[in-house]
Amino acid sequence: MSQTTSAKRPLTALQKNVKKTVVVRLKNEVEYKGKMKNVDSYMNLIMTEAEELVDGKIVGKFARAILRGNNVLFIKLEDEI
Amino acid sequence: MSQTTSAKRPLTALQKNVKKTVVVRLKNEVEYKGKMKNVDSYMNLIMTEAEELVDGKIVGKFARAILRGNNVLFIKLEDEI
Amino acid sequence: MSQTTSAKRPLTALQKNVKKTVVVRLKNEVEYKGKMKNVDSYMNLIMTEAEELVDGKIVGKFARAILRGNNVLFIKLEDEI
Amino acid sequence: MSQTTSAKRPLTALQKNVKKTVVVRLKNEVEYKGKMKNVDSYMNLIMTEAEELVDGKIVGKFARAILRGNNVLFIKLEDEI
Amino acid sequence: MSQTTSAKRPLTALQKNVKKTVVVRLKNEVEYKGKMKNVDSYMNLIMTEAEELVDGKIVGKFARAILRGNNVLFIKLEDEI
Amino acid sequence: MSQTTSAKRPLTALQKNVKKTVVVRLKNEVEYKGKMKNVDSYMNLIMTEAEELVDGKIVGKFARAILRGNNVLFIKLEDEI
Amino acid sequence: MSQTTSAKRPLTALQKNVKKTVVVRLKNEVEYKGKMKNVDSYMNLIMTEAEELVDGKIVGKFARAILRGNNVLFIKLEDEI
Repeated sequence: MSQTTSAKRPLTALQKNVKKTVVVRLKNEVEYKGKMKNVDSYMNLIMTEAEELVDGKIVGKFARAILRGNNVLFIKLEDEI
Repeated sequence: MSQTTSAKRPLTALQKNVKKTVVVRLKNEVEYKGKMKNVDSYMNLIMTEAEELVDGKIVGKFARAILRGNNVLFIKLEDEI
Repeated sequence: MSQTTSAKRPLTALQKNVKKTVVVRLKNEVEYKGKMKNVDSYMNLIMTEAEELVDGKIVGKFARAILRGNNVLFIKLEDEI
Repeated sequence: MSQTTSAKRPLTALQKNVKKTVVVRLKNEVEYKGKMKNVDSYMNLIMTEAEELVDGKIVGKFARAILRGNNVLFIKLEDEI
Repeated sequence: MSQTTSAKRPLTALQKNVKKTVVVRLKNEVEYKGKMKNVDSYMNLIMTEAEELVDGKIVGKFARAILRGNNVLFIKLEDEI
Repeated sequence: MSQTTSAKRPLTALQKNVKKTVVVRLKNEVEYKGKMKNVDSYMNLIMTEAEELVDGKIVGKFARAILRGNNVLFIKLEDEI
Repeated sequence: MSQTTSAKRPLTALQKNVKKTVVVRLKNEVEYKGKMKNVDSYMNLIMTEAEELVDGKIVGKFARAILRGNNVLFIKLEDEI
Protein backbone atom coordinates (compact mmCIF):
# COMPACT_ATOMS: atom_id res chain seq x y z
CA MET A 1 0.00 0.00 0.00
CA SER A 2 2.70 2.48 -0.97
CA GLN A 3 1.28 5.87 -1.83
CA THR A 4 2.22 9.44 -2.56
CA THR A 5 -0.66 11.14 -0.78
CA SER A 6 0.30 14.16 1.28
CA ALA A 7 -2.12 13.19 4.10
CA LYS A 8 -0.29 11.85 7.14
CA ARG A 9 -0.53 8.13 7.88
CA PRO A 10 -1.88 7.21 11.34
CA LEU A 11 1.47 6.36 12.94
CA THR A 12 3.07 9.49 11.52
CA ALA A 13 0.19 11.63 12.81
CA LEU A 14 0.63 10.01 16.21
CA GLN A 15 4.34 10.77 16.18
CA LYS A 16 3.59 14.42 15.38
CA ASN A 17 1.67 14.65 18.67
CA VAL A 18 4.61 13.74 20.85
CA LYS A 19 4.87 16.17 23.80
CA LYS A 20 1.16 17.01 23.55
CA THR A 21 -1.72 16.00 25.77
CA VAL A 22 -3.63 12.93 24.64
CA VAL A 23 -6.34 10.66 26.03
CA VAL A 24 -5.60 6.96 25.58
CA ARG A 25 -8.46 4.52 25.92
CA LEU A 26 -7.43 0.93 26.57
CA LYS A 27 -9.41 -2.20 25.68
CA ASN A 28 -10.54 -2.50 29.31
CA GLU A 29 -12.33 0.87 28.80
CA VAL A 30 -10.06 2.72 31.25
CA GLU A 31 -8.71 6.05 29.96
CA TYR A 32 -5.38 7.74 30.60
CA LYS A 33 -5.10 11.48 30.06
CA GLY A 34 -1.66 13.03 30.09
CA LYS A 35 1.31 14.14 28.07
CA MET A 36 2.53 11.66 25.45
CA LYS A 37 6.29 11.87 25.86
CA ASN A 38 6.96 9.38 23.09
CA VAL A 39 5.41 6.56 21.10
CA ASP A 40 6.60 3.79 18.79
CA SER A 41 5.09 1.89 15.87
CA TYR A 42 3.37 -0.66 18.18
CA MET A 43 1.67 2.27 19.92
CA ASN A 44 3.74 1.64 23.05
CA LEU A 45 3.58 5.04 24.79
CA ILE A 46 5.43 6.95 27.45
CA MET A 47 2.90 9.07 29.35
CA THR A 48 3.64 11.63 32.03
CA GLU A 49 1.49 13.53 34.52
CA ALA A 50 -1.33 11.14 33.71
CA GLU A 51 -4.77 10.77 35.21
CA GLU A 52 -6.54 7.40 35.14
CA LEU A 53 -10.23 7.78 34.38
CA VAL A 54 -13.14 5.35 34.71
CA ASP A 55 -16.44 6.65 33.31
CA GLY A 56 -14.85 10.09 33.22
CA LYS A 57 -13.92 10.11 36.92
CA ILE A 58 -10.33 10.29 38.10
CA VAL A 59 -9.45 7.07 39.94
CA GLY A 60 -5.66 7.36 39.93
CA LYS A 61 -2.65 9.40 38.92
CA PHE A 62 0.89 8.61 37.97
CA ALA A 63 3.95 10.66 37.12
CA ARG A 64 5.32 8.49 34.34
CA ALA A 65 4.38 5.16 32.79
CA ILE A 66 4.93 2.99 29.74
CA LEU A 67 1.66 1.73 28.22
CA ARG A 68 1.94 -1.45 26.13
CA GLY A 69 0.61 -0.71 22.66
CA ASN A 70 -1.41 -3.88 22.10
CA ASN A 71 -3.89 -2.77 24.78
CA VAL A 72 -4.73 0.52 23.03
CA LEU A 73 -8.25 0.98 21.66
CA PHE A 74 -7.77 4.56 20.48
CA ILE A 75 -5.86 7.75 21.23
CA LYS A 76 -7.67 11.09 21.20
CA LEU A 77 -5.47 13.93 19.99
CA GLU A 78 -5.71 17.64 20.61
CA ASP A 79 -7.81 19.39 17.99
CA GLU A 80 -5.55 20.68 15.30
CA ILE A 81 -4.90 20.25 11.61
CA MET B 1 -2.79 -14.88 -4.16
CA SER B 2 -1.45 -12.60 -6.89
CA GLN B 3 -4.10 -11.67 -9.40
CA THR B 4 -4.83 -9.40 -12.32
CA THR B 5 -8.49 -8.69 -11.55
CA SER B 6 -9.52 -5.09 -11.99
CA ALA B 7 -11.70 -5.19 -8.84
CA LYS B 8 -10.14 -3.28 -5.97
CA ARG B 9 -8.71 -5.27 -3.06
CA PRO B 10 -10.12 -4.43 0.40
CA LEU B 11 -7.20 -2.32 1.62
CA THR B 12 -7.03 -0.43 -1.65
CA ALA B 13 -10.78 0.24 -1.52
CA LEU B 14 -10.34 1.50 2.02
CA GLN B 15 -7.53 3.82 0.94
CA LYS B 16 -9.75 5.24 -1.81
CA ASN B 17 -12.18 6.41 0.87
CA VAL B 18 -9.68 8.61 2.67
CA LYS B 19 -11.25 12.03 3.40
CA LYS B 20 -14.75 10.57 3.26
CA THR B 21 -17.20 9.84 6.06
CA VAL B 22 -17.13 6.29 7.38
CA VAL B 23 -18.64 4.37 10.28
CA VAL B 24 -16.16 2.16 12.10
CA ARG B 25 -17.50 -0.58 14.34
CA LEU B 26 -15.03 -1.92 16.88
CA LYS B 27 -15.05 -5.40 18.45
CA ASN B 28 -16.63 -3.95 21.60
CA GLU B 29 -19.66 -3.05 19.41
CA VAL B 30 -19.11 0.71 19.80
CA GLU B 31 -19.29 2.68 16.53
CA TYR B 32 -17.39 5.76 15.46
CA LYS B 33 -18.83 7.93 12.68
CA GLY B 34 -16.63 10.62 11.21
CA LYS B 35 -14.20 11.58 8.50
CA MET B 36 -11.44 9.05 7.82
CA LYS B 37 -8.41 11.31 7.42
CA ASN B 38 -6.09 8.42 6.72
CA VAL B 39 -5.64 4.68 7.18
CA ASP B 40 -2.81 2.15 6.92
CA SER B 41 -2.59 -1.54 6.07
CA TYR B 42 -3.31 -2.59 9.70
CA MET B 43 -6.54 -0.56 9.50
CA ASN B 44 -5.12 1.96 11.98
CA LEU B 45 -7.24 5.04 11.24
CA ILE B 46 -7.13 8.78 11.81
CA MET B 47 -10.69 9.97 12.37
CA THR B 48 -11.85 13.58 12.73
CA GLU B 49 -15.12 15.17 13.81
CA ALA B 50 -16.21 11.80 15.11
CA GLU B 51 -19.27 10.74 17.05
CA GLU B 52 -19.17 7.74 19.35
CA LEU B 53 -22.34 5.66 19.10
CA VAL B 54 -23.72 2.91 21.32
CA ASP B 55 -26.86 1.23 19.98
CA GLY B 56 -27.14 4.11 17.51
CA LYS B 57 -27.13 6.81 20.20
CA ILE B 58 -24.38 9.43 20.44
CA VAL B 59 -22.50 8.97 23.70
CA GLY B 60 -19.40 11.02 22.93
CA LYS B 61 -17.60 13.19 20.41
CA PHE B 62 -14.00 13.90 19.60
CA ALA B 63 -12.19 16.19 17.20
CA ARG B 64 -9.40 13.82 16.20
CA ALA B 65 -8.29 10.35 17.21
CA ILE B 66 -6.16 7.43 16.10
CA LEU B 67 -8.02 4.09 16.23
CA ARG B 68 -5.83 0.99 16.53
CA GLY B 69 -6.60 -1.31 13.61
CA ASN B 70 -6.68 -4.62 15.46
CA ASN B 71 -9.88 -3.55 17.23
CA VAL B 72 -11.81 -2.97 13.99
CA LEU B 73 -14.74 -5.26 13.20
CA PHE B 74 -15.78 -3.50 10.02
CA ILE B 75 -15.84 -0.11 8.32
CA LYS B 76 -18.98 1.06 6.50
CA LEU B 77 -18.20 3.20 3.47
CA GLU B 78 -20.32 5.77 1.66
CA ASP B 79 -22.37 4.19 -1.12
CA GLU B 80 -20.45 4.51 -4.34
CA ILE B 81 -18.85 2.32 -6.98
CA MET C 1 2.84 -27.89 2.24
CA SER C 2 3.43 -27.38 -1.47
CA GLN C 3 1.29 -29.67 -3.61
CA THR C 4 0.19 -30.34 -7.13
CA THR C 5 -3.39 -31.35 -6.39
CA SER C 6 -5.95 -29.89 -8.76
CA ALA C 7 -8.41 -29.21 -5.91
CA LYS C 8 -8.60 -25.52 -5.11
CA ARG C 9 -7.02 -24.31 -1.87
CA PRO C 10 -9.35 -22.40 0.51
CA LEU C 11 -8.11 -18.90 -0.32
CA THR C 12 -8.19 -19.61 -4.04
CA ALA C 13 -11.73 -20.97 -3.77
CA LEU C 14 -12.69 -17.82 -1.90
CA GLN C 15 -11.17 -15.64 -4.60
CA LYS C 16 -13.16 -17.51 -7.24
CA ASN C 17 -16.36 -16.36 -5.51
CA VAL C 18 -15.66 -12.67 -5.90
CA LYS C 19 -18.77 -10.87 -7.20
CA LYS C 20 -21.03 -13.60 -5.85
CA THR C 21 -23.37 -13.59 -2.87
CA VAL C 22 -21.88 -14.98 0.35
CA VAL C 23 -22.86 -15.16 4.00
CA VAL C 24 -20.05 -14.21 6.38
CA ARG C 25 -20.35 -15.23 10.03
CA LEU C 26 -18.14 -13.30 12.41
CA LYS C 27 -16.82 -14.53 15.76
CA ASN C 28 -19.52 -12.49 17.54
CA GLU C 29 -22.07 -14.78 15.78
CA VAL C 30 -23.50 -11.92 13.66
CA GLU C 31 -23.90 -12.76 9.96
CA TYR C 32 -23.53 -10.54 6.92
CA LYS C 33 -25.22 -11.58 3.66
CA GLY C 34 -24.32 -9.69 0.52
CA LYS C 35 -22.14 -9.55 -2.54
CA MET C 36 -18.43 -10.15 -1.92
CA LYS C 37 -16.84 -7.49 -4.12
CA ASN C 38 -13.33 -8.54 -3.23
CA VAL C 39 -11.26 -10.39 -0.64
CA ASP C 40 -7.60 -10.72 0.28
CA SER C 41 -5.46 -13.42 1.88
CA TYR C 42 -6.33 -12.24 5.43
CA MET C 43 -10.01 -12.69 4.54
CA ASN C 44 -10.52 -8.93 4.67
CA LEU C 45 -13.65 -8.50 2.52
CA ILE C 46 -15.46 -5.78 0.63
CA MET C 47 -19.19 -6.47 0.88
CA THR C 48 -21.97 -4.57 -0.89
CA GLU C 49 -25.75 -4.55 -0.54
CA ALA C 50 -25.33 -6.40 2.73
CA GLU C 51 -27.84 -7.41 5.36
CA GLU C 52 -26.80 -7.85 8.97
CA LEU C 53 -28.46 -10.85 10.57
CA VAL C 54 -28.80 -11.92 14.20
CA ASP C 55 -30.41 -15.32 14.70
CA GLY C 56 -31.49 -15.16 11.06
CA LYS C 57 -33.33 -11.84 11.46
CA ILE C 58 -32.28 -8.70 9.59
CA VAL C 59 -31.13 -6.09 12.08
CA GLY C 60 -29.30 -3.74 9.73
CA LYS C 61 -28.29 -3.03 6.15
CA PHE C 62 -25.38 -1.29 4.52
CA ALA C 63 -24.45 -0.42 0.97
CA ARG C 64 -20.73 -1.11 1.24
CA ALA C 65 -18.32 -2.12 3.98
CA ILE C 66 -14.89 -3.54 4.61
CA LEU C 67 -14.89 -6.47 7.07
CA ARG C 68 -11.60 -7.13 8.87
CA GLY C 69 -10.55 -10.71 8.17
CA ASN C 70 -9.43 -11.70 11.65
CA ASN C 71 -13.04 -11.55 12.86
CA VAL C 72 -14.28 -14.11 10.33
CA LEU C 73 -15.54 -17.47 11.60
CA PHE C 74 -16.61 -18.83 8.22
CA ILE C 75 -17.92 -17.76 4.81
CA LYS C 76 -20.78 -19.67 3.20
CA LEU C 77 -20.51 -19.79 -0.58
CA GLU C 78 -23.17 -20.32 -3.22
CA ASP C 79 -23.59 -24.00 -4.05
CA GLU C 80 -21.43 -24.78 -7.03
CA ILE C 81 -18.47 -26.91 -7.99
CA MET D 1 12.63 -29.57 14.37
CA SER D 2 13.63 -31.23 11.12
CA GLN D 3 13.31 -35.00 11.23
CA THR D 4 13.38 -38.09 9.10
CA THR D 5 10.64 -40.03 10.87
CA SER D 6 8.23 -41.81 8.55
CA ALA D 7 5.23 -40.85 10.71
CA LYS D 8 3.16 -38.15 9.08
CA ARG D 9 3.25 -34.64 10.57
CA PRO D 10 -0.13 -33.18 11.58
CA LEU D 11 -0.57 -30.88 8.58
CA THR D 12 0.47 -33.62 6.18
CA ALA D 13 -1.97 -36.04 7.80
CA LEU D 14 -4.68 -33.42 7.45
CA GLN D 15 -3.87 -32.93 3.78
CA LYS D 16 -4.13 -36.70 3.22
CA ASN D 17 -7.76 -36.54 4.35
CA VAL D 18 -8.83 -34.10 1.65
CA LYS D 19 -12.09 -35.32 0.02
CA LYS D 20 -13.00 -37.33 3.13
CA THR D 21 -15.61 -36.66 5.78
CA VAL D 22 -14.35 -34.84 8.87
CA VAL D 23 -15.84 -33.23 11.96
CA VAL D 24 -14.38 -29.81 12.75
CA ARG D 25 -14.92 -28.40 16.23
CA LEU D 26 -14.44 -24.65 16.51
CA LYS D 27 -13.42 -22.73 19.64
CA ASN D 28 -17.05 -21.72 20.18
CA GLU D 29 -17.80 -25.47 20.64
CA VAL D 30 -19.93 -25.69 17.47
CA GLU D 31 -19.12 -28.64 15.21
CA TYR D 32 -19.23 -28.93 11.45
CA LYS D 33 -19.50 -32.37 9.85
CA GLY D 34 -18.97 -32.64 6.13
CA LYS D 35 -16.55 -33.32 3.33
CA MET D 36 -13.22 -31.50 3.58
CA LYS D 37 -12.69 -30.39 0.00
CA ASN D 38 -9.36 -28.77 0.78
CA VAL D 39 -7.25 -27.33 3.58
CA ASP D 40 -4.16 -25.16 3.90
CA SER D 41 -1.37 -24.81 6.45
CA TYR D 42 -3.41 -22.35 8.61
CA MET D 43 -6.15 -25.00 8.79
CA ASN D 44 -8.41 -22.83 6.63
CA LEU D 45 -10.83 -25.41 5.22
CA ILE D 46 -13.30 -25.76 2.37
CA MET D 47 -16.21 -27.89 3.58
CA THR D 48 -19.12 -29.14 1.49
CA GLU D 49 -22.44 -30.76 2.34
CA ALA D 50 -21.88 -29.76 5.94
CA GLU D 51 -24.09 -30.05 8.99
CA GLU D 52 -23.73 -27.61 11.86
CA LEU D 53 -24.05 -29.34 15.22
CA VAL D 54 -24.58 -27.97 18.73
CA ASP D 55 -24.44 -30.59 21.47
CA GLY D 56 -24.69 -33.22 18.77
CA LYS D 57 -27.93 -31.82 17.30
CA ILE D 58 -28.14 -30.49 13.74
CA VAL D 59 -28.91 -26.76 13.86
CA GLY D 60 -27.98 -25.83 10.30
CA LYS D 61 -26.70 -27.04 6.95
CA PHE D 62 -24.72 -25.50 4.17
CA ALA D 63 -23.60 -26.63 0.74
CA ARG D 64 -20.15 -25.07 0.78
CA ALA D 65 -18.19 -22.86 3.13
CA ILE D 66 -14.70 -21.66 3.95
CA LEU D 67 -13.81 -22.01 7.66
CA ARG D 68 -11.07 -19.72 8.91
CA GLY D 69 -8.31 -21.84 10.44
CA ASN D 70 -7.60 -19.80 13.55
CA ASN D 71 -11.01 -20.77 14.97
CA VAL D 72 -10.32 -24.51 14.80
CA LEU D 73 -10.07 -26.46 18.06
CA PHE D 74 -9.63 -29.88 16.47
CA ILE D 75 -10.56 -31.92 13.41
CA LYS D 76 -11.75 -35.50 13.80
CA LEU D 77 -10.69 -37.72 10.93
CA GLU D 78 -12.17 -40.97 9.65
CA ASP D 79 -10.62 -43.98 11.37
CA GLU D 80 -7.74 -45.19 9.27
CA ILE D 81 -4.03 -45.70 9.49
CA MET E 1 19.16 -18.38 23.10
CA SER E 2 21.49 -20.88 21.47
CA GLN E 3 23.03 -23.29 23.95
CA THR E 4 25.01 -26.46 24.23
CA THR E 5 23.24 -27.97 27.22
CA SER E 6 22.51 -31.66 26.93
CA ALA E 7 19.05 -31.27 28.48
CA LYS E 8 16.32 -31.62 25.90
CA ARG E 9 14.41 -28.48 24.86
CA PRO E 10 10.61 -28.63 25.28
CA LEU E 11 9.74 -29.24 21.62
CA THR E 12 12.44 -31.88 21.30
CA ALA E 13 11.19 -33.62 24.44
CA LEU E 14 7.70 -33.55 22.99
CA GLN E 15 8.91 -35.06 19.73
CA LYS E 16 10.61 -37.88 21.69
CA ASN E 17 7.19 -38.89 23.03
CA VAL E 18 5.66 -39.54 19.63
CA LYS E 19 3.80 -42.88 19.65
CA LYS E 20 3.34 -42.71 23.43
CA THR E 21 0.25 -41.98 25.47
CA VAL E 22 -0.19 -38.36 26.51
CA VAL E 23 -2.87 -36.24 28.14
CA VAL E 24 -3.42 -32.90 26.40
CA ARG E 25 -5.26 -30.17 28.29
CA LEU E 26 -6.69 -27.43 26.12
CA LYS E 27 -7.38 -23.84 27.18
CA ASN E 28 -11.08 -24.67 27.55
CA GLU E 29 -10.02 -27.10 30.34
CA VAL E 30 -11.09 -30.20 28.38
CA GLU E 31 -8.51 -33.01 28.33
CA TYR E 32 -7.71 -35.52 25.63
CA LYS E 33 -5.97 -38.77 26.58
CA GLY E 34 -4.63 -40.93 23.79
CA LYS E 35 -1.66 -41.85 21.67
CA MET E 36 0.27 -38.92 20.22
CA LYS E 37 0.94 -40.13 16.66
CA ASN E 38 2.84 -37.00 15.74
CA VAL E 39 3.38 -33.37 16.67
CA ASP E 40 4.91 -30.28 15.08
CA SER E 41 6.62 -27.14 16.38
CA TYR E 42 3.25 -25.31 16.86
CA MET E 43 2.14 -28.22 19.07
CA ASN E 44 -0.38 -29.29 16.42
CA LEU E 45 -0.93 -32.95 17.32
CA ILE E 46 -2.29 -36.11 15.74
CA MET E 47 -4.00 -38.14 18.46
CA THR E 48 -5.45 -41.62 18.08
CA GLU E 49 -7.70 -43.77 20.28
CA ALA E 50 -8.44 -40.69 22.34
CA GLU E 51 -10.81 -40.11 25.21
CA GLU E 52 -12.27 -36.67 25.86
CA LEU E 53 -12.40 -35.87 29.57
CA VAL E 54 -14.23 -33.16 31.50
CA ASP E 55 -13.42 -33.07 35.22
CA GLY E 56 -11.81 -36.48 34.80
CA LYS E 57 -14.96 -38.10 33.33
CA ILE E 58 -15.05 -39.51 29.80
CA VAL E 59 -17.51 -37.51 27.71
CA GLY E 60 -16.43 -38.61 24.24
CA LYS E 61 -14.08 -40.75 22.20
CA PHE E 62 -12.53 -40.50 18.80
CA ALA E 63 -10.34 -42.73 16.68
CA ARG E 64 -8.13 -40.04 15.19
CA ALA E 65 -8.00 -36.26 15.31
CA ILE E 66 -5.76 -33.29 14.65
CA LEU E 67 -5.60 -30.82 17.56
CA ARG E 68 -4.62 -27.26 16.67
CA GLY E 69 -1.56 -26.31 18.71
CA ASN E 70 -2.57 -22.81 19.73
CA ASN E 71 -5.31 -24.24 21.97
CA VAL E 72 -2.90 -26.34 24.05
CA LEU E 73 -2.41 -25.46 27.72
CA PHE E 74 -0.08 -28.34 28.53
CA ILE E 75 0.72 -31.91 27.59
CA LYS E 76 1.34 -34.50 30.31
CA LEU E 77 3.90 -37.10 29.30
CA GLU E 78 4.47 -40.63 30.56
CA ASP E 79 6.89 -40.70 33.49
CA GLU E 80 10.34 -41.34 32.17
CA ILE E 81 13.74 -39.72 32.06
CA MET F 1 9.01 5.35 11.53
CA SER F 2 12.70 6.19 11.72
CA GLN F 3 13.36 9.52 13.40
CA THR F 4 16.06 11.71 14.80
CA THR F 5 14.15 13.07 17.80
CA SER F 6 16.14 13.20 21.01
CA ALA F 7 13.13 12.07 23.10
CA LYS F 8 13.54 8.50 24.28
CA ARG F 9 11.38 5.82 22.66
CA PRO F 10 9.21 3.75 25.05
CA LEU F 11 11.40 0.63 25.09
CA THR F 12 14.54 2.69 25.54
CA ALA F 13 12.94 4.60 28.41
CA LEU F 14 11.98 1.29 29.98
CA GLN F 15 15.52 0.00 29.65
CA LYS F 16 16.83 3.13 31.37
CA ASN F 17 14.80 2.18 34.45
CA VAL F 18 16.50 -1.16 34.96
CA LYS F 19 17.44 -1.58 38.65
CA LYS F 20 14.76 0.87 39.74
CA THR F 21 11.44 0.26 41.45
CA VAL F 22 8.46 -0.04 39.12
CA VAL F 23 4.81 -1.02 39.37
CA VAL F 24 3.67 -3.40 36.65
CA ARG F 25 -0.04 -3.78 36.04
CA LEU F 26 -1.04 -6.91 34.16
CA LYS F 27 -4.16 -7.36 32.01
CA ASN F 28 -5.84 -9.26 34.84
CA GLU F 29 -5.62 -5.98 36.87
CA VAL F 30 -3.15 -7.41 39.39
CA GLU F 31 -0.14 -5.18 40.13
CA TYR F 32 3.43 -6.12 40.94
CA LYS F 33 5.62 -3.59 42.73
CA GLY F 34 9.32 -4.30 42.96
CA LYS F 35 12.74 -3.77 41.47
CA MET F 36 12.95 -4.28 37.71
CA LYS F 37 16.20 -6.23 37.37
CA ASN F 38 15.97 -6.39 33.61
CA VAL F 39 13.56 -6.17 30.69
CA ASP F 40 13.58 -7.06 27.00
CA SER F 41 11.82 -5.71 23.91
CA TYR F 42 8.72 -7.91 24.51
CA MET F 43 8.43 -6.33 27.96
CA ASN F 44 9.39 -9.65 29.58
CA LEU F 45 10.67 -8.51 32.98
CA ILE F 46 12.78 -9.86 35.82
CA MET F 47 11.37 -8.48 39.07
CA THR F 48 12.84 -8.89 42.53
CA GLU F 49 11.55 -8.21 46.03
CA ALA F 50 8.09 -7.86 44.56
CA GLU F 51 4.72 -7.37 46.19
CA GLU F 52 1.55 -8.58 44.49
CA LEU F 53 -1.28 -6.11 44.88
CA VAL F 54 -5.02 -6.44 44.29
CA ASP F 55 -6.97 -3.19 44.68
CA GLY F 56 -3.89 -1.74 46.36
CA LYS F 57 -3.68 -4.46 49.03
CA ILE F 58 -0.71 -6.80 49.30
CA VAL F 59 -1.85 -10.36 48.60
CA GLY F 60 1.51 -11.97 47.96
CA LYS F 61 5.27 -11.53 47.80
CA PHE F 62 8.05 -13.12 45.86
CA ALA F 63 11.81 -12.80 45.81
CA ARG F 64 12.33 -13.09 42.08
CA ALA F 65 10.12 -13.77 39.09
CA ILE F 66 10.00 -13.50 35.32
CA LEU F 67 6.83 -11.78 34.04
CA ARG F 68 5.82 -12.61 30.45
CA GLY F 69 5.61 -9.38 28.49
CA ASN F 70 2.41 -10.04 26.57
CA ASN F 71 0.42 -9.80 29.81
CA VAL F 72 1.60 -6.28 30.62
CA LEU F 73 -0.95 -3.45 30.58
CA PHE F 74 1.44 -0.74 31.72
CA ILE F 75 4.53 -0.11 33.83
CA LYS F 76 4.66 2.87 36.19
CA LEU F 77 8.14 4.33 36.51
CA GLU F 78 9.68 6.38 39.27
CA ASP F 79 9.17 10.09 38.74
CA GLU F 80 12.17 11.49 36.96
CA ILE F 81 13.05 13.22 33.74
CA MET G 1 17.58 -2.87 21.81
CA SER G 2 21.12 -4.24 21.72
CA GLN G 3 23.08 -3.50 24.85
CA THR G 4 26.23 -4.33 26.70
CA THR G 5 24.84 -4.34 30.23
CA SER G 6 26.05 -7.18 32.41
CA ALA G 7 22.59 -7.69 33.93
CA LYS G 8 20.95 -10.84 32.63
CA ARG G 9 18.04 -10.46 30.21
CA PRO G 10 14.79 -12.19 31.25
CA LEU G 11 15.08 -15.21 28.95
CA THR G 12 18.72 -15.72 29.90
CA ALA G 13 17.83 -15.53 33.59
CA LEU G 14 15.12 -18.09 33.00
CA GLN G 15 17.55 -20.40 31.24
CA LYS G 16 19.95 -20.14 34.20
CA ASN G 17 17.24 -21.65 36.40
CA VAL G 18 16.95 -24.87 34.45
CA LYS G 19 16.96 -27.85 36.84
CA LYS G 20 15.71 -25.70 39.71
CA THR G 21 12.30 -25.54 41.34
CA VAL G 22 9.99 -22.86 39.97
CA VAL G 23 6.35 -21.89 40.34
CA VAL G 24 4.63 -21.14 37.04
CA ARG G 25 1.37 -19.22 37.10
CA LEU G 26 -0.73 -19.52 33.97
CA LYS G 27 -3.26 -16.99 32.67
CA ASN G 28 -6.09 -19.12 34.06
CA GLU G 29 -4.60 -18.42 37.54
CA VAL G 30 -3.62 -22.06 38.13
CA GLU G 31 -0.06 -22.56 39.42
CA TYR G 32 2.39 -25.36 38.76
CA LYS G 33 5.23 -25.95 41.21
CA GLY G 34 7.98 -28.30 40.18
CA LYS G 35 11.39 -28.70 38.65
CA MET G 36 11.94 -26.80 35.39
CA LYS G 37 13.80 -29.36 33.31
CA ASN G 38 14.13 -27.04 30.36
CA VAL G 39 12.65 -23.94 28.73
CA ASP G 40 12.81 -22.22 25.35
CA SER G 41 12.48 -18.64 24.14
CA TYR G 42 8.64 -18.88 23.92
CA MET G 43 8.63 -19.90 27.59
CA ASN G 44 7.54 -23.41 26.64
CA LEU G 45 8.64 -25.43 29.68
CA ILE G 46 9.32 -29.03 30.63
CA MET G 47 8.27 -29.51 34.25
CA THR G 48 8.77 -32.60 36.36
CA GLU G 49 7.43 -33.71 39.73
CA ALA G 50 4.91 -30.93 39.53
CA GLU G 51 2.01 -30.01 41.77
CA GLU G 52 -1.01 -28.19 40.38
CA LEU G 53 -2.26 -25.52 42.76
CA VAL G 54 -5.51 -23.57 42.87
CA ASP G 55 -5.62 -20.85 45.54
CA GLY G 56 -2.54 -22.44 47.07
CA LYS G 57 -4.15 -25.90 47.45
CA ILE G 58 -2.83 -28.96 45.63
CA VAL G 59 -5.46 -30.19 43.18
CA GLY G 60 -3.30 -32.43 41.01
CA LYS G 61 0.15 -33.85 40.40
CA PHE G 62 2.04 -34.99 37.36
CA ALA G 63 5.41 -36.57 36.75
CA ARG G 64 6.32 -34.70 33.59
CA ALA G 65 4.58 -32.21 31.32
CA ILE G 66 5.23 -29.65 28.60
CA LEU G 67 3.58 -26.27 29.31
CA ARG G 68 2.90 -24.10 26.27
CA GLY G 69 4.63 -20.77 26.75
CA ASN G 70 1.89 -18.46 25.53
CA ASN G 71 -0.22 -19.36 28.56
CA VAL G 72 2.42 -18.22 31.08
CA LEU G 73 1.65 -15.20 33.27
CA PHE G 74 4.85 -15.36 35.31
CA ILE G 75 7.46 -17.76 36.66
CA LYS G 76 8.67 -17.42 40.25
CA LEU G 77 12.31 -18.38 40.67
CA GLU G 78 14.20 -19.54 43.71
CA ASP G 79 15.71 -16.64 45.61
CA GLU G 80 19.26 -16.17 44.46
CA ILE G 81 21.43 -13.60 42.77
